[in-house]
Amino acid sequence: MIILGVDPGLLHTGWGVIEARGSQMRALSYGCIDTRSGEDLGRRLQAINAGISEVIERYRPEAVAIEDVFFGVDAKAAFSVGEARAAVILAAASAGLSPVHYPPRQVKQVVVGGGGAEKQQVAYMVRLQLGLDHEPRPDHCSDALAIALTHATLNRRAEVQV
Amino acid sequence: MIILGVDPGLLHTGWGVIEARGSQMRALSYGCIDTRSGEDLGRRLQAINAGISEVIERYRPEAVAIEDVFFGVDAKAAFSVGEARAAVILAAASAGLSPVHYPPRQVKQVVVGGGGAEKQQVAYMVRLQLGLDHEPRPDHCSDALAIALTHATLNRRAEVQV
Repeated sequence: MIILGVDPGLLHTGWGVIEARGSQMRALSYGCIDTRSGEDLGRRLQAINAGISEVIERYRPEAVAIEDVFFGVDAKAAFSVGEARAAVILAAASAGLSPVHYPPRQVKQVVVGGGGAEKQQVAYMVRLQLGLDHEPRPDHCSDALAIALTHATLNRRAEVQV
Repeated sequence: MIILGVDPGLLHTGWGVIEARGSQMRALSYGCIDTRSGEDLGRRLQAINAGISEVIERYRPEAVAIEDVFFGVDAKAAFSVGEARAAVILAAASAGLSPVHYPPRQVKQVVVGGGGAEKQQVAYMVRLQLGLDHEPRPDHCSDALAIALTHATLNRRAEVQV
């Protein structure tokens, strides 16, 4: 199963593609879509939308997993994360995919074993579980791979039964 | 000048198209894109995106005016308004249009003359200024027309000078 994980943000949208076969998981690719804060909002959303569409086109994931809203943020931050997330969801919908959402605490719980883990621990476990020879940087990429790992882990049993 | 005003929301996105010639303004069309709360989020955003694209295709507005974020709302509400707004902005961007944003207080100030006006007053003034024989309903349509009116009013001088 090929899974695309996305950590959406207007400034930085991290993405990571992994392949999961039972408990074996490996990273196929990861990256970050950056936009400039001074740029036209429409262009920024188009860049995110087109960037994710391109990744979906290239890797044809069966599932898209997205980091859910973080409710500790203020309205302004939530607003711009919502905008970025919509650009990602529309890219997935164009490819007939309906993203699954995971709250940050659940991602940390599944990947690191504790909902309150540090970003550094997440990066470490992502590296370990995907057998990478480096910790993925920046954090948005590491987080995106962690979200894909979460989806793979939570859906492993179902896949083994097939 | 043909102007599209939009009041974006995940459940209800109001839109209104007006034509402004100097101080003469008339409504060409208005409507509401409704989505169901139980439906897939990707489909809901696609409905908003496609609906606005269709209106732009039909009326070819020179300008798109959008109601800006309302900072009194909580993070969850801001998040879903952000999602709906991104679907609208992406539709505009596809047509080469970069929406102009107006905060609700400014819209009320321009259309009714007071930033704290009631929805009913806005509907009344929209009807009066656009010469409609009825008050546009629901509120989202009235608000969308008010946003278009705001843009027309604030850009009137520039148009007369041309």
